Amino acid sequence: MNSPQPAAEQISEPVESGVTADHPGVNELFAVLAYGEVAAFYRLTEEARMAPNLRGRINMASMAAAEMGHYELLRDALEHRGVDVVPAMTKYASALENYHRMTTPSTWLEALVKTYIGDALAADFYLEIADALPEAVATVVRAVLSETGHSQFVVAEVRAAVTASDRQRHRLALWARRLLGEAVTQAQFVLADHDELVDLVMSSGEGLTQLAEFFGRLQNTHQSRMQELGLA
Amino acid sequence: MNSPQPAAEQISEPVESGVTADHPGVNELFAVLAYGEVAAFYRLTEEARMAPNLRGRINMASMAAAEMGHYELLRDALEHRGVDVVPAMTKYASALENYHRMTTPSTWLEALVKTYIGDALAADFYLEIADALPEAVATVVRAVLSETGHSQFVVAEVRAAVTASDRQRHRLALWARRLLGEAVTQAQFVLADHDELVDLVMSSGEGLTQLAEFFGRLQNTHQSRMQELGLA
Repeated sequence: MNSPQPAAEQISEPVESGVTADHPGVNELFAVLAYGEVAAFYRLTEEARMAPNLRGRINMASMAAAEMGHYELLRDALEHRGVDVVPAMTKYASALENYHRMTTPSTWLEALVKTYIGDALAADFYLEIADALPEAVATVVRAVLSETGHSQFVVAEVRAAVTASDRQRHRLALWARRLLGEAVTQAQFVLADHDELVDLVMSSGEGLTQLAEFFGRLQNTHQSRMQELGLA
Repeated sequence: MNSPQPAAEQISEPVESGVTADHPGVNELFAVLAYGEVAAFYRLTEEARMAPNLRGRINMASMAAAEMGHYELLRDALEHRGVDVVPAMTKYASALENYHRMTTPSTWLEALVKTYIGDALAADFYLEIADALPEAVATVVRAVLSETGHSQFVVAEVRAAVTASDRQRHRLALWARRLLGEAVTQAQFVLADHDELVDLVMSSGEGLTQLAEFFGRLQNTHQSRMQELGLA
């Protein structure tokens, strides 16, 4: 168990001093992440239809396959905790499907940027929560995290396109901002509907004591991804 | 190297007594199998749209992810042999895409049967060729083979449906026969266009000395799969 006392200045309201692996929010967290992986799988395969060539379709398929590997880690962890996975996931369907519906790419470059930004946001999120969770739970999250990073193929293709065209750069920069905005919006909807998740996030370690700080850090790392892609 | 002398009665025409790992047919074999895995990935994800529920979609996604694992084994083997994978695969696109176009399922049960029969045919095929190939090449094929068998989830669902309805049983039995027929047709087209593959198949070990025997064995194992599904 690894639940450091939060520093006093980080507490705005009285919270429990630590989270244990049997916190009811842990099952909810794994369930929303699990649905997220399956949703990402199907969206990647659909968006891959825009690929201009076989190499692009193969890269997208490899990424999608990696998402199912993440899903299987989360499923195993949930089953180990005695949770029936599919019903547990279902309640998070609308938030994830809404995110994807609101961010349906209309070009292959938009699909590539969505893939990269989505993968990076997921990795940021996994990293944040891993640091904040009790060790038994963090191990699962870190195992998933160590499996991300399949989206590097995107960088060269997007950089080439935006170097060649200012119009593309402006267009894709707006698109990337919209992706972050929708992700944050849907994450807030999920938290608003699930007190046990808020409690988990608010009461665990120093990583997530402040939701506003959390979203602020997501914004910062998002900015560094924009630079990698040549969009900022 | 593992290339047993074929028994005399299995030889109808003079053939070379063994195949080496640098036979030009080996690259072609890996390339057609690699395209087959990627094509199966995308078809499974498309056909999964007919799934009546999330559990079905997850099962199909896991199977599709396994196909990409097979692809990656074949890609690594080809790269190790100095072959540029994507152009090598492309020449087999039409045969594989034709197979899938000719066998587009119109119901979820047809999709399930196609998944199961397709996976089993691929496993049969991998097993036949592994026995017939030089050891260095067979190792790759067996590694792929050991990864198959993700389609067991199909059996219970199909058996339940055909036990409840004779009409469904007859319909799906016809469908399964059509799947085998199209697979054999497309395999023959591929062989007709690629002499180096025929040479590999005809000259390697005892497993594949006779193409007619090979297709006969596929027919027999197909029949046993029909029984497993309650279709024969």
